[in-house]
Amino acid sequence: MQAEIITIGDEILIGQIVDTNSAFIGKILNSIGVSVYQITSIQDDKEHILKALAEAEANADIIIVTGGLGPTKDDITKHTICTYFNDHLVRNQAVTENIERLWRDYVKQPLQQVNLDQALIPSQAQALMNTVGSAPGMWIEKNNKVFISLPGVPYEMRLLMENEVIPKLKTKYKRPYILHKTVITYGVGESLLAEKISVWESNLPEYIKLAYLPNFGKVRLRLSAIGINNDLITQTVNAEIQKLLPLISEEFVGIEEEDGDLELVIAKRLVKSGKTLALAESCTGGKMAELFTASAGASAFFKGGLVTYATQSKIDILGVPEALIEAHSVVSAEVAESMAKKARILYKSDYAISTTGNAGPLKGDSGAEVGTVFIAFASENKVVSQKLQLGSNRERVLNKAVNKALELLKKEI
Amino acid sequence: MQAEIITIGDEILIGQIVDTNSAFIGKILNSIGVSVYQITSIQDDKEHILKALAEAEANADIIIVTGGLGPTKDDITKHTICTYFNDHLVRNQAVTENIERLWRDYVKQPLQQVNLDQALIPSQAQALMNTVGSAPGMWIEKNNKVFISLPGVPYEMRLLMENEVIPKLKTKYKRPYILHKTVITYGVGESLLAEKISVWESNLPEYIKLAYLPNFGKVRLRLSAIGINNDLITQTVNAEIQKLLPLISEEFVGIEEEDGDLELVIAKRLVKSGKTLALAESCTGGKMAELFTASAGASAFFKGGLVTYATQSKIDILGVPEALIEAHSVVSAEVAESMAKKARILYKSDYAISTTGNAGPLKGDSGAEVGTVFIAFASENKVVSQKLQLGSNRERVLNKAVNKALELLKKEI
Repeated sequence: MQAEIITIGDEILIGQIVDTNSAFIGKILNSIGVSVYQITSIQDDKEHILKALAEAEANADIIIVTGGLGPTKDDITKHTICTYFNDHLVRNQAVTENIERLWRDYVKQPLQQVNLDQALIPSQAQALMNTVGSAPGMWIEKNNKVFISLPGVPYEMRLLMENEVIPKLKTKYKRPYILHKTVITYGVGESLLAEKISVWESNLPEYIKLAYLPNFGKVRLRLSAIGINNDLITQTVNAEIQKLLPLISEEFVGIEEEDGDLELVIAKRLVKSGKTLALAESCTGGKMAELFTASAGASAFFKGGLVTYATQSKIDILGVPEALIEAHSVVSAEVAESMAKKARILYKSDYAISTTGNAGPLKGDSGAEVGTVFIAFASENKVVSQKLQLGSNRERVLNKAVNKALELLKKEI
Repeated sequence: MQAEIITIGDEILIGQIVDTNSAFIGKILNSIGVSVYQITSIQDDKEHILKALAEAEANADIIIVTGGLGPTKDDITKHTICTYFNDHLVRNQAVTENIERLWRDYVKQPLQQVNLDQALIPSQAQALMNTVGSAPGMWIEKNNKVFISLPGVPYEMRLLMENEVIPKLKTKYKRPYILHKTVITYGVGESLLAEKISVWESNLPEYIKLAYLPNFGKVRLRLSAIGINNDLITQTVNAEIQKLLPLISEEFVGIEEEDGDLELVIAKRLVKSGKTLALAESCTGGKMAELFTASAGASAFFKGGLVTYATQSKIDILGVPEALIEAHSVVSAEVAESMAKKARILYKSDYAISTTGNAGPLKGDSGAEVGTVFIAFASENKVVSQKLQLGSNRERVLNKAVNKALELLKKEI
């Protein structure tokens, strides 16, 4: 059971947007046992869309197309699908009513003909109802293959995948089970990690595939298996992970999706212990706060955070002593520790972490080299800090500082 | 002059990572007049890589492959390239020295054979020196086509594109000019916007392509042109934008890349006027702070921000009166306004903006419906707030709240 994803839009090819739709679709298809053979991103060009559809039909059983369904002239997917299937557009009554409802209840602006014409779909297509937008999804079956066209707006596409496409695919096809389990490690590079686990890796059953995913100081190890017996592949993968863990006891952080990524592992642990967290961020400028609040349920443990970007705000708001900054500079272990201590007190939290550093591109007032970052942790009885040297790439410095601060927090709680 | 990008890695197809490399490559190629015909993402599978290389060779002049160059067993791109070109691996001395230098100066861990073997490249390939990682880029010419293989680690790939690939492509090929200019608008949907500008749109010269890019309440209008006379296409596109602007005077925010996106337009305006900004974020949890600090130079205007996620922290740290919260609830215009006022005073900034709302999924303590968000702006003499109803999708609520708060800020400064 193979799928191909075709994402349509010049904005993807010129790099104006990053294609996040494919990742979402790939993940949800995998979860129901459908593998993705290829993702193809192409321009809003009729000939190119036709060519991509034909190639995908040759490779895959399920072809999912996103994009090009807007009401404006640059969107041509629907007409091109008609050409491909030698079909014509007909008005769909249910979609028309859905559009009228959306305009009446939400848009509250004049309903135009171009909006109503979103209800025109190929006569062979079943409409997939888009409850949050005017472009319906479309489902066309031909020669035992399924073609699915979805809007490119991510949250519309996601709802359509979850509520319409996945249930229909589940009904239509008998599918195998695909299992991915990803072990998250921090602290060593991929080649050293590979050496540590090389014997284990060579003894993996053939149907378990191992991948190394390095990223700013963390390495994720993904085990993938596919099979018709869900219990068997689950047991085998879990057993292999149990053999792996003692080999990486120092580096192991958690299982992705299960424990979640590091911030989710921390979140769960805090909720379980009833402890709370606060942040004082300088160079990371809100990145950590965003990580913890991106998921629902943060209010159970996350008290909040201060972004004290300006030195004066560290003094005025956090209450870091001015003399401490003068003595050690704003990028120092002493200031990082003071920031964490003060944040903890201000927010009345059990724990706090802090960052202060120079992410570049210039040396700045602090005199600290670009890439120097201090992170600190504070609890009622303990304060600990670390000095990091993270290179000169701003994005890398910020991401790595966040990862290291989370790593420190996890170790201490 | 056409390019095709092939990104290799199971992690892309199963949706474990989002492919950001293609967007970067597409953008930088466009900037030197090279169009991207297609982006193809495929598995770490030998036959599939060979097939994709052959198809890309048929479509494009320049084939850029990323991924699969790590030192671990799951990475097979280099060996597959050898198969494709009927070639064998040879040790490259300069790459060997680079790896030894990296391990001596940065990694400071034992150099293993697998790391040294990163210096093995196909005999027909020129090495592209990777100054920050052990996998070199590779450049192979065949039948007047260029094949380029780059590591998948984004910051290594980026440096190689900027420092090696782009200069070499510029030398090798005579290229046309590609110009994209994107006008950013906020406030109306794409179909109403299309109606407003329909006469202008129909009169655009044929070689200027217009695209609508809607995204959480903002719509970007991209004008694209390609030609051999850079001055001519630049003048024509600029002239068309000058005709467009009076039609969208209410909705216009700025020109992307030039003025930058809204947060950059605001940043520039603040720096120019010598004014400073502070934030008080509740539901947006640091997202705005991250936006303003993602770019270098934020310290010139950005004082910092408070993430007061817990109600108590709004009282304790910001100093929002408890009675105000009791009287109006924590999700209210009064509390949003108080948060902005207090943040402005705490950070001694000229302006402040705030958010408080319920992003879901549950109704929570405030009693506010999911999707209800208040935003507020405060300056020395003025406080203003807005109530928003943003639906029930958490991600959408947060993104739209940020966009709306930025829009309010821009209007007021």
